Amino acid sequence: MPARGDHDTRRADVAEAVWRVLANHGFDGLTLRAVATEMGASTGLLTHYFATKRDLVRYAHEIAAERTDARPLRQADEPGLAALRVALVNVLPLTPEAAAMSRVWVSFWDAALGDDILSEAQRTRYENWRGRLQACVEAAQARRELTRETPAADVAVEAAAFAHGLVVQALFDPVRLPADRQLGLLENFLSGLTNRR
Amino acid sequence: MPARGDHDTRRADVAEAVWRVLANHGFDGLTLRAVATEMGASTGLLTHYFATKRDLVRYAHEIAAERTDARPLRQADEPGLAALRVALVNVLPLTPEAAAMSRVWVSFWDAALGDDILSEAQRTRYENWRGRLQACVEAAQARRELTRETPAADVAVEAAAFAHGLVVQALFDPVRLPADRQLGLLENFLSGLTNRR
Repeated sequence: MPARGDHDTRRADVAEAVWRVLANHGFDGLTLRAVATEMGASTGLLTHYFATKRDLVRYAHEIAAERTDARPLRQADEPGLAALRVALVNVLPLTPEAAAMSRVWVSFWDAALGDDILSEAQRTRYENWRGRLQACVEAAQARRELTRETPAADVAVEAAAFAHGLVVQALFDPVRLPADRQLGLLENFLSGLTNRR
Repeated sequence: MPARGDHDTRRADVAEAVWRVLANHGFDGLTLRAVATEMGASTGLLTHYFATKRDLVRYAHEIAAERTDARPLRQADEPGLAALRVALVNVLPLTPEAAAMSRVWVSFWDAALGDDILSEAQRTRYENWRGRLQACVEAAQARRELTRETPAADVAVEAAAFAHGLVVQALFDPVRLPADRQLGLLENFLSGLTNRR
């Protein structure tokens, strides 16, 4: 039986290897063998941690959520529209690290659509994110930066849709959609919201 | 050796079984075994068609593209904004059949991000779609339904982003985003475009 410290080190190694497989190959490429290769370990060792592929996928989702929630986020100087802008900037694949994270989440959608528990987790994650966007929109409405004509909850869905749809296009076409163009498109979208009657 | 007719029938059976696996389980659930089970055939039979998993995935992509391109599409009565609206309506998961097709494509993104040839196919597919949306936007600008302030190519990316991002949210949360709400959100988005200065 390994000493406690070894055990924790090994768990951290597994987490890191799972993340590297996700970042490079997505959930589609996530197998015990791929994680073992990444660790320079045997597949047998990993079956000690994950009895089934589903266990591995669910664990990988936890790792992805932890790393995403712990990543450094830009902070807005002001509430309202400025905060909405930053919240959307924070999900765009503007750097290689952000692109790797986006790629993991886009690939997770496929895994989640085929698994009730992960599907529920993704639904909740979306709901929480839309809630945060809605709070920004409500503040922007209170500051008269945005009209109250469109309900804040609807603007939140629309903003989340715009951002994630742009993420997917940028992942497939980084040449046509580099960081500066993504940011320009975001400004178009936001100025569209502010110009609404 | 089977007669020609038998051979064609079997090919059609394989195509149908692949589509059903995709619609129910996505690319993540696409295996020779799943297709064989769907056909009531042996996995051995399928290895005659697909030497590798990659062959199966690429074939499944062809089937998905064929079925998508052959599906009945709503037609616009007029060019310009009306045509843009219909083009976006045509990709929303408003019916169970459309939701199955959306689910296949969202799951395909994962498969495509891990395969250079499929990634290129998806990039081209996006480019073609954005080109069609851009033509609608240009017509809408010529009809003075939309301002020329935002370049048509940018509006096309934004519209594609909005629609696909809404597709993903609706797949995960059909209760909060049923067909009528999706259509309402689309109207918000379009009236936002027309109200831009």
